Amino acid sequence: MQNIQDEPPLANNHISVDCVVIGFDGEKLKALLVKRIGEEAGDIYNDMKLPGSLIYTDEDLDEAAQRVLCELTGVKSVNLIQFKAFGSKNRTSNPKDVRWLERATKLKVERIVTIAYMAMVKIDRTLSKSLEDYQACWVALEDIKPLAFDHNLIIKEALAYIRQFVEFNPSILFDLLPRKFTAARLRTLFELVYGKSIDVRNFHKKIALMEYVVPLEERQKGVAHRAARYYKFDRKLYNKVRR
Amino acid sequence: MQNIQDEPPLANNHISVDCVVIGFDGEKLKALLVKRIGEEAGDIYNDMKLPGSLIYTDEDLDEAAQRVLCELTGVKSVNLIQFKAFGSKNRTSNPKDVRWLERATKLKVERIVTIAYMAMVKIDRTLSKSLEDYQACWVALEDIKPLAFDHNLIIKEALAYIRQFVEFNPSILFDLLPRKFTAARLRTLFELVYGKSIDVRNFHKKIALMEYVVPLEERQKGVAHRAARYYKFDRKLYNKVRR
Repeated sequence: MQNIQDEPPLANNHISVDCVVIGFDGEKLKALLVKRIGEEAGDIYNDMKLPGSLIYTDEDLDEAAQRVLCELTGVKSVNLIQFKAFGSKNRTSNPKDVRWLERATKLKVERIVTIAYMAMVKIDRTLSKSLEDYQACWVALEDIKPLAFDHNLIIKEALAYIRQFVEFNPSILFDLLPRKFTAARLRTLFELVYGKSIDVRNFHKKIALMEYVVPLEERQKGVAHRAARYYKFDRKLYNKVRR
Repeated sequence: MQNIQDEPPLANNHISVDCVVIGFDGEKLKALLVKRIGEEAGDIYNDMKLPGSLIYTDEDLDEAAQRVLCELTGVKSVNLIQFKAFGSKNRTSNPKDVRWLERATKLKVERIVTIAYMAMVKIDRTLSKSLEDYQACWVALEDIKPLAFDHNLIIKEALAYIRQFVEFNPSILFDLLPRKFTAARLRTLFELVYGKSIDVRNFHKKIALMEYVVPLEERQKGVAHRAARYYKFDRKLYNKVRR
């Protein structure tokens, strides 16, 4: 790509994809992060980033997101939903990020527009152990430290997007839950997604209205407190009820 | 931007913004398009495209969208919402599009990722007349011919996005309507957005449930049929009712 003649400064950019993959361990929402190892003035440092990377010439955005997530974490075949492009010129304002990326990609980096994807997955998915360099791991949202680039912002906006998405497609929440779950676990999930506490009794009424959340005969075993009933999500019923 | 050493083929891209601006004339949904003039084998051709262009190095994506829309159509200060990035490598598969863009930008074009924005505006907004080259105009969705690049697809996806968006934020529909409107006009708008006909009586019940659609004392004047009542959208009430 070259300027044929002098013209206003059109941006010459790299494009990356970044994946916000959210899991739920029954108590907390967690994001899947990978380790970043860099060097600054001879010192090795260690921090975290979202699974993401530059795209290849011959791949589409959605393909790139699937490839990058799998390469960096071992997680594949997830329903990655593109939710926003981040293209502020300030994304590369931290020289540390630029130095790291230039070393990693062997490219001169000016500006990177990243296309952000999000997915909700069951947290017991196997993470690749062969990718020691990246050491993918789940980090509770509240424990996430400052990440590379604008990745903290991207996670924040992913959560805002999820909150809206759930309004018209609540089924996505059940992607976070095991096959059977208690009402308490479902309530905790709603509380975390909406960021507010929900009254227990009101929530039982709410569940009763969600025809697609079906009570099972089975109850918890080996618990100190009164054994709670299990529920399951019935996708067929959901698809029927919600048009 | 240059390869420091041999590496896998990372994409080297241009970034553009494209704006899907939707208006409603009381009967039809329309999109704001601009004229494209090109030359192929010595013949001048004329077709249409979305208002869009490459971004500058020193501007963020949202800024670029506002600038480009204003430059090409004269429309400014609209609530442009970023809804999707389009980055298929097939976007530039039509040599005609590439030739046109290379002539317009004086750049060698390989691949362009475009960040698409949408807005709903009142259709009586003044379009700039000084921009004769672009000749911005409203075209009914059903009358839109094949556009440049993947712009037909971008419009299609904008409409799908709007349909979802309206589910949790119906107020955006009222951005398309004049200050006062009849129930029939509002119903037509709902029918167009959802792509299905709505029973008149059911719709009057629906309006009654929308507390923020307030009946006025005023009625239509000088109409052959029975003069219909006017309604207005009460944003304060809407904000109160919808959290």
